[in-house]
Amino acid sequence: MTEGSLIFPIEEFQNRTVRLQERMSDEGLDALLLTTPADVFYATGFLTRFWESPARPWFVVVPRRGAPVAVIPRIGADLMGRTWITDIRTWDAPNPHDDGVGLLGDTLKELTPNAARIGMPSGLETHVRMPLADLERLRATLRDRLIVDGTDALHRVREIKSDAEVAKIKTSCVIADRAFARVSEYARAGAPLDHIFRQFQMALLDEGADWVSYVAGAAAQGGYGDVISPATTAPLAPGDVLMLDTGAVKDGYFCDFNRNFSVGDIDDAVARTHDALWEATGVALLDLKPGARACDVHKMMCDALAARGLTPGGGRLGHGLGVTLTEWPSFTPLDTTELRAGMVLTLEPSAEVSPGKILVHEENIVLREDGPELLSARAPCEMPVLAS
Amino acid sequence: MTEGSLIFPIEEFQNRTVRLQERMSDEGLDALLLTTPADVFYATGFLTRFWESPARPWFVVVPRRGAPVAVIPRIGADLMGRTWITDIRTWDAPNPHDDGVGLLGDTLKELTPNAARIGMPSGLETHVRMPLADLERLRATLRDRLIVDGTDALHRVREIKSDAEVAKIKTSCVIADRAFARVSEYARAGAPLDHIFRQFQMALLDEGADWVSYVAGAAAQGGYGDVISPATTAPLAPGDVLMLDTGAVKDGYFCDFNRNFSVGDIDDAVARTHDALWEATGVALLDLKPGARACDVHKMMCDALAARGLTPGGGRLGHGLGVTLTEWPSFTPLDTTELRAGMVLTLEPSAEVSPGKILVHEENIVLREDGPELLSARAPCEMPVLAS
Repeated sequence: MTEGSLIFPIEEFQNRTVRLQERMSDEGLDALLLTTPADVFYATGFLTRFWESPARPWFVVVPRRGAPVAVIPRIGADLMGRTWITDIRTWDAPNPHDDGVGLLGDTLKELTPNAARIGMPSGLETHVRMPLADLERLRATLRDRLIVDGTDALHRVREIKSDAEVAKIKTSCVIADRAFARVSEYARAGAPLDHIFRQFQMALLDEGADWVSYVAGAAAQGGYGDVISPATTAPLAPGDVLMLDTGAVKDGYFCDFNRNFSVGDIDDAVARTHDALWEATGVALLDLKPGARACDVHKMMCDALAARGLTPGGGRLGHGLGVTLTEWPSFTPLDTTELRAGMVLTLEPSAEVSPGKILVHEENIVLREDGPELLSARAPCEMPVLAS
Repeated sequence: MTEGSLIFPIEEFQNRTVRLQERMSDEGLDALLLTTPADVFYATGFLTRFWESPARPWFVVVPRRGAPVAVIPRIGADLMGRTWITDIRTWDAPNPHDDGVGLLGDTLKELTPNAARIGMPSGLETHVRMPLADLERLRATLRDRLIVDGTDALHRVREIKSDAEVAKIKTSCVIADRAFARVSEYARAGAPLDHIFRQFQMALLDEGADWVSYVAGAAAQGGYGDVISPATTAPLAPGDVLMLDTGAVKDGYFCDFNRNFSVGDIDDAVARTHDALWEATGVALLDLKPGARACDVHKMMCDALAARGLTPGGGRLGHGLGVTLTEWPSFTPLDTTELRAGMVLTLEPSAEVSPGKILVHEENIVLREDGPELLSARAPCEMPVLAS
């Protein structure tokens, strides 16, 4: 973050607020109540790793008109005061008798009419980051004002990225591109996987990441069974496929993509599968257009894999990306979200190499009016080989 | 994490379960329903950075008798299968029609009697990590089974650390000790703060951290105004106090302490304040005993600072520590939690150097029957000097 400056010009936040308020108006919401790190950052620019402490709740109210209001623990007043937010109300937290609920209730009553409908994101891929008992207390305090689902009002806005946001995500992708290009410096047969994970994180920082919120991966013979584990101390062995996946963060924006490496010569089945995954991504890069639904992208990539005689992996084959590692929509058969220009997405096909062994390949894109634009540097079609 | 092994022997988890079940019995709870990374890790040993993705909820049910049951997205089945948990029920997530609620409801009905009381942590320093609308759906599904507050049942157990847990936290502290000892290698007048933050994170990884979940700090003339900000690009200047604070993670356990450095000669007021903070910690290290309340520790340190003519900083002056960066209790005037042997705590006095300028000093301890045992290497009484 540059000294004394916001991460974005104030107009970026004003535009977001206007867009949120238009949606709120369409949906008959009098306010949005936001509680999660990503939503608070999105509305205000308030960026801190202090969310790692579960001790205190933080609230931002977006009223129907005017700028958002922050209702936050006093410890955050200084930092929030450096964002574009000017109405900042604080309490001494944590307070076992009233941890901000009274102040939040008063604020909501001041900012909304009687019988207001106050939206909180409550649907798929959301949670409320405050104690449940306090939410119930808040509801009692609000009486005729109702807390209703605000998911759509928030998600339909957050999912369309401004050019300034796309540039931030691109920067994170470039940092990861550079770190992936250095994997062969420390990953070779005999190197323990936990050592590789540490070196990879250090390389991401060295290349400019502010912090590394996510690294996962695996190394196993002829493909891997799992993609979310932390590292073990097992050393790489010839014939292993090493996969590293990262969500590195710069200015609060994530990348999310992986790369595969072969330890020594590439097994034929692995090479065939990787090639087919690369082609499946290629089909989406060529054919994806605004107006397609999330489930259409899933089908597009499954069909490409099936044409090569491969069984697609379970789970989703890509998702949104931005101020969290993953955002909606999800490329599954069930998600009918319409894709629109300005969405930043991951294409993440996976396929079985053999029973219980999969490969996953991932790229990051922004969807433009005429189709996808890559944000990650396209993976090499042929898997890079590490020294055995 | 060692290859193929649990982070702890299975007895550690069995003991935790027995202790949870004793508390549940005392409080008339028929099950505990856990949803957060820390609670799920505590009950099962399931450790992954995949929680960074908000897409999917994860559930663990601790029944009144028997081992916990995992109700989780299929993508986690492999990793959960490597913990001590054997009853693992999965669904394909994210599913916009039913994201695990049906499966969770069936599981709870199977594991609890009619009219059961199912505890969810709902109080101070908790939140429920699932969509609010799904929680309401779950409640409707459960009919006569009630979801009630399970905070005490969980917190009174989690707050007492086993020796194996203390050893893990100690390991994280030693990693941070070593990284703090290397700060003078890259922090000197002219070095940009964001460069220092990156180098510090790299040093933590190099010293053995699995990942670095928290780094914050500040650098300013004669003390700082804020302790939760990310780094700016401003270079260190002579007369600055540099503070770095970290929660580095090893095997899922955090440290949480900071160190202060003077860029060039130490200002008198800064030296006096640092000395008084060091003494305030010393008083707590000497006098703190099981049976004291959290508010007593707050008073103990405030009195020590007042005796030196200093104004204690606002907010809490320490807190619990373990599988999250911060845990309850909080050293505030309002927290009456009784301190017991086995608690791991931070002592974190802060004081004003001048209006708007504070210093914070922090150590990590485990409270034993006869008093505190340091887990962090005691900070030097005199602030280390960095090259100007």
